[in-house]
Amino acid sequence: MSKALDIDRLRAETPACANLIHFNNAGAALSPEAVMAAMCGHLALEQKIGGYEAAAAAHGELQDFYGAFADLLGCASEEVAFIENATRAWDMAFYAIPFKEGDRIVTVEAEYASNYIAFLQMARRRGVKIEVVRSDANGAVDVTELERIVRAGGVRLIAITHVPTQGGLVNPAAEIGRVARANGVLYLLDACQSVGQMPVDVGEIQCDMLSGTGRKFLRGPRGTGFLYVRKGIVDQLEPPFLDMQAAEIDPSGDYRLAPGAMRFENWESFVAGRLGLRAAARYALDLGLDRIRDRVFTLGAELRDQLQKIPGTAVHDLGKEKCGIVTFTKAGEDPDAIKQRLAAAGISVSVSRARYAALDLGKRGLPAVVRASVHYYNTSEEIARFCQVLSGRA
Amino acid sequence: MSKALDIDRLRAETPACANLIHFNNAGAALSPEAVMAAMCGHLALEQKIGGYEAAAAAHGELQDFYGAFADLLGCASEEVAFIENATRAWDMAFYAIPFKEGDRIVTVEAEYASNYIAFLQMARRRGVKIEVVRSDANGAVDVTELERIVRAGGVRLIAITHVPTQGGLVNPAAEIGRVARANGVLYLLDACQSVGQMPVDVGEIQCDMLSGTGRKFLRGPRGTGFLYVRKGIVDQLEPPFLDMQAAEIDPSGDYRLAPGAMRFENWESFVAGRLGLRAAARYALDLGLDRIRDRVFTLGAELRDQLQKIPGTAVHDLGKEKCGIVTFTKAGEDPDAIKQRLAAAGISVSVSRARYAALDLGKRGLPAVVRASVHYYNTSEEIARFCQVLSGRA
Repeated sequence: MSKALDIDRLRAETPACANLIHFNNAGAALSPEAVMAAMCGHLALEQKIGGYEAAAAAHGELQDFYGAFADLLGCASEEVAFIENATRAWDMAFYAIPFKEGDRIVTVEAEYASNYIAFLQMARRRGVKIEVVRSDANGAVDVTELERIVRAGGVRLIAITHVPTQGGLVNPAAEIGRVARANGVLYLLDACQSVGQMPVDVGEIQCDMLSGTGRKFLRGPRGTGFLYVRKGIVDQLEPPFLDMQAAEIDPSGDYRLAPGAMRFENWESFVAGRLGLRAAARYALDLGLDRIRDRVFTLGAELRDQLQKIPGTAVHDLGKEKCGIVTFTKAGEDPDAIKQRLAAAGISVSVSRARYAALDLGKRGLPAVVRASVHYYNTSEEIARFCQVLSGRA
Repeated sequence: MSKALDIDRLRAETPACANLIHFNNAGAALSPEAVMAAMCGHLALEQKIGGYEAAAAAHGELQDFYGAFADLLGCASEEVAFIENATRAWDMAFYAIPFKEGDRIVTVEAEYASNYIAFLQMARRRGVKIEVVRSDANGAVDVTELERIVRAGGVRLIAITHVPTQGGLVNPAAEIGRVARANGVLYLLDACQSVGQMPVDVGEIQCDMLSGTGRKFLRGPRGTGFLYVRKGIVDQLEPPFLDMQAAEIDPSGDYRLAPGAMRFENWESFVAGRLGLRAAARYALDLGLDRIRDRVFTLGAELRDQLQKIPGTAVHDLGKEKCGIVTFTKAGEDPDAIKQRLAAAGISVSVSRARYAALDLGKRGLPAVVRASVHYYNTSEEIARFCQVLSGRA
């Protein structure tokens, strides 16, 4: 049996926990000191000996970025790329797919607006068609319906968000992967809110491409992201941008792509951020992603329970399996006003707006919801205090 | 008459100057303390109050990023975008151009390999043709020849590197701009090595798009870059990637691009880096780009003079106007061995290889050269010491 997380130690390693209640982990989590030390230590070294010289000195740690993410995602090191942020990681995969006119892209109602805008651009550019799978009774993607659409043929890509930004929903990524693999369809998983919050194993999920960020549940730096691309399909993809990291000019005067996922990188990057992100992945691995999920999901459920006891408060999270993202509204008080009132009491939340997921909140008649997202370093005491302030009893 | 730079003060604000001779400024320069303070101060604030909360607190400074670069480049704030690095900044502009089959792209012999690989990709993807303008007797682009090619018609884009990475050459950017504007041809200037080293005014140069980086002569953070796109042409360009920062879904269900250069950005970024880059731009503006250029070019010329006195040493910089990048070889000693020997004496340089600029060094029979690049905080004493060590007299 696995040992429980030592919450006191984890909070001590995150000094701000003593001063604020940070329930905006789905926006950007607080980093542990180990991440800050890796990043700031490298920034100081850059100023001491020079940027390239510091990168050369950190060569081993920089290489271990790939090893750490291979461990985290259950893949090979050469299937991992370091990318500037999750949006660009997703873009590098999506725009590398050689879509033809009439190809179908299958997505879900809860899809992130940024991804949906990219689908619209590809529709205009290449004449692809967008198919939105309806949700099941719980609000998760209806996998039976998805399978029906895929079997009808012409589907080039299934692109879904594992955990949508605007709620507690966890989409059944592995069930979708089974459908994708069985039908030979490419599968791109936006794992921005899931990696770091729960175990995410690309082998179990059977996705072909997966994008993620540093700053959310992984507790890494802002301005960092990562991309997994499966070895077996990487040669079907030509990156939308190329430079001399991604390709080289061969003697014939033509170019040749770099092997593996390296073709999605470029020569220059936020080196200190890569070291911070590597430290964040190793920190999460040390704690254990199973234990992290158990703690985060339990706190999320506790927060939902408590919220539902506050008169006038409605919780809006969909899905059978729910994560640490909790969304709600309160009758008679605007979500932005709630956010401000909580901030004045030292509690951070965010507001999710309909335009972040046009096919979801808007359709459900919710222009905006308050989003409170917990991490493992949060506590039951913080949840109690949160509800006290929210209900006006504080 | 402008006051001279106070080199002692500038070196004191760059503490590592006391301990090493940093002649790798074309790789990554040392940042002044003001840049580090802006960046690390924000990273600390993120850990104190949260990432989004810190960005909200720094709203004014973050907005001034655009103002600082408008001042630096002589353009309007809405013509500036913050991008992850110079490669991606150049990519966002280049790949946004609606090339048609047969369109011609005009570039130069000294062009950066990464850009050239992108031309090759566009040739394969859309059937564009690449025209390489021959160099004049000094090794700079031959503007008369460029004009002849452009007047022949069918040219969609002139894409050149202002200061190529592999030598002291400064291409006549404004003369090229005159040809581009007179012939209605788009002009993309890669200013990676020039912004921060000399005045670069987009109005004088008459370029339509300009990309640059933080980490080189601007002395900003790694993992930061910027893009200028002229108001008058921005609506001809559709960014290669879109997200909900770059576009929004309109009521019809289609998307609408963000106004101005913002369409080249994305929702997430390295916020602390943006603050560091803004501080770097303000620092350079305070010193004055004319004074910076005078100092850097003078030190570059001095280094060339001294090198030429060392037996067996050949300087390889092209062009009539030469900047602070100095390249050389020494008979009987491999460039990599020279770099190592200098490093052991506390002197940083880099090695430029033929593959960084396939049409330049390789053609000139130079597989590799040592690159020593000076900044204004370097001194004549450092140059003397450098030459002493290089010649083996140390």
